[in-house]
Amino acid sequence: MDELAIIDKIFRPLAAPGAPAFGLKNDTAIYTPPEDHDLVITTDVMIEGVHFLKTEEPGVIARRLLRSNLSDLAASAATPVGYLLGLMGTAKIETTWWQAFGASLAFEQKEFGIALFGGDTTSGSKSLCLSITALGIVQRGGALTRLGASPGDLVCVSGTIGDATLGLLSLKGDMPHDDFLIARFQNPLPRLEVGRALLGLASATIDISDGLVMDLESLCAASEVGATLDLDAVPLSPPAKDYANAGPANLVQLVTGGDDFELLFTVPPQHRDDLPALAKKTGLPITIIGEINDTRQVDVRGKDGRPVAIKTKGYRHFKE
Amino acid sequence: MDELAIIDKIFRPLAAPGAPAFGLKNDTAIYTPPEDHDLVITTDVMIEGVHFLKTEEPGVIARRLLRSNLSDLAASAATPVGYLLGLMGTAKIETTWWQAFGASLAFEQKEFGIALFGGDTTSGSKSLCLSITALGIVQRGGALTRLGASPGDLVCVSGTIGDATLGLLSLKGDMPHDDFLIARFQNPLPRLEVGRALLGLASATIDISDGLVMDLESLCAASEVGATLDLDAVPLSPPAKDYANAGPANLVQLVTGGDDFELLFTVPPQHRDDLPALAKKTGLPITIIGEINDTRQVDVRGKDGRPVAIKTKGYRHFKE
Repeated sequence: MDELAIIDKIFRPLAAPGAPAFGLKNDTAIYTPPEDHDLVITTDVMIEGVHFLKTEEPGVIARRLLRSNLSDLAASAATPVGYLLGLMGTAKIETTWWQAFGASLAFEQKEFGIALFGGDTTSGSKSLCLSITALGIVQRGGALTRLGASPGDLVCVSGTIGDATLGLLSLKGDMPHDDFLIARFQNPLPRLEVGRALLGLASATIDISDGLVMDLESLCAASEVGATLDLDAVPLSPPAKDYANAGPANLVQLVTGGDDFELLFTVPPQHRDDLPALAKKTGLPITIIGEINDTRQVDVRGKDGRPVAIKTKGYRHFKE
Repeated sequence: MDELAIIDKIFRPLAAPGAPAFGLKNDTAIYTPPEDHDLVITTDVMIEGVHFLKTEEPGVIARRLLRSNLSDLAASAATPVGYLLGLMGTAKIETTWWQAFGASLAFEQKEFGIALFGGDTTSGSKSLCLSITALGIVQRGGALTRLGASPGDLVCVSGTIGDATLGLLSLKGDMPHDDFLIARFQNPLPRLEVGRALLGLASATIDISDGLVMDLESLCAASEVGATLDLDAVPLSPPAKDYANAGPANLVQLVTGGDDFELLFTVPPQHRDDLPALAKKTGLPITIIGEINDTRQVDVRGKDGRPVAIKTKGYRHFKE
């Protein structure tokens, strides 16, 4: 299929005929957030061989790309409304690939109540690259950011950490095949409900994509604070617990591996007693794993509170 | 430089410390259009070796990418406010490259009164790929689209056509070096003032990026109409005129070459007498080159009104 056929057959059915997308017949989308709402915007990209394996199903690629963006919206307590897709393809892509890619986007759109607003479909890259800009809305002034943490706040996390790291190892054959772990990598669930439930509760939020330790550092840098992180408190699924117990460096690998797409957030201590209700409401473990302080650095503590030195804290691009 | 250094040294100075960008310390931007305005959004991507030459200056790459997006906003009669940048780099990029890329973005931001709202900086692609999502605003309900052309409307174009096509040939050494033509390729001027002046005048607009003939077809398809295009009326700069006169297929090459970033628009016939004032106001030639009809196809006419068959009407990705 050429560009026009791809737009016509694959992407047009994902867009509404009127505003904002005009059935993709216009080069721009026209969108206005509802009254008393702010717009929340984020861009995430993915590169073949870096963010996804070359052998991965197109449907999985589409899903992870879209959900990594929705995870950023979740951290802002936003409700997603739409997205624009930039596709930089190789010279030729099979029709069946397009069909599976489009079918996955259609499924995701239903799942999250969003629509395709626009995009750009191009070819000639040596690596397939994808970019998504996702748009969400939030009550005016209500968006959460990384910038509000204060000394004394509790550091909390939703769900369990490290499953996606192990899922990728399993997928690559570096670990025994494990459906649960692979699903946690290929099928992340953006924590939109957690994010919205954090309104009025959390002082700062971030989603965990680069690795728990690095993302905590990013939150602290944005808030101009420091933190302690209690490694033993980090919530692990049963297979991740087994992995952590199997070697001395394994737990560190899990808290620096990334792609968890859980929410890391800080809560003023007076809200400590609200956390069980949050866990109940969202059906997820909500765990206190550390505390904000004024040191401007993140101290990772192991058993008996001993400091743990961590060299690589998460994934960093252009690392020389 | 690694990812964090690049964001800190190159991109952070391009973003304001508060909303919408939060100094790039947050994963999302929070932006709300002013009261009584709509938001206009567009995404354009570029691939090394396809949209720009591998040898091109980073500053030129940044400028063309940004301006190709602003050109889409111009066609919607929007005023640009900001952009998000997705960069999918190769394994290593020199510090001097980043500096020149950032300096060019800084210049463009001043030129167009916009700021960096966010983005994603990644490495590991075999081809450098870039995506920009640009945001603009327009008085509520005032955005122009491709969808409003009616039979009898005049087909008009701003500026001159084909210069960028020749500029690229000149840059590649396939034609004698010509500074004017190269500048028209490397330094396109998004016709923002023309777009805004078309409010209340034009029935449909599109910017010319794929090629005049293909973009006229896109406008007609979106408006569910057809058109005649009078090749002899297409406005050419003096060097483009020389080129057109040098061979029988040359004029067709110019109207199918793309990257002009002029505005193609339709005007109801009762507004014909307003066109000279538009030309005067914008300082650009405004030329009538055809007429909308109800045929649902674009008929290209040469000398004496004879039909001209055009095989390749513009640039199409994934062309097999």
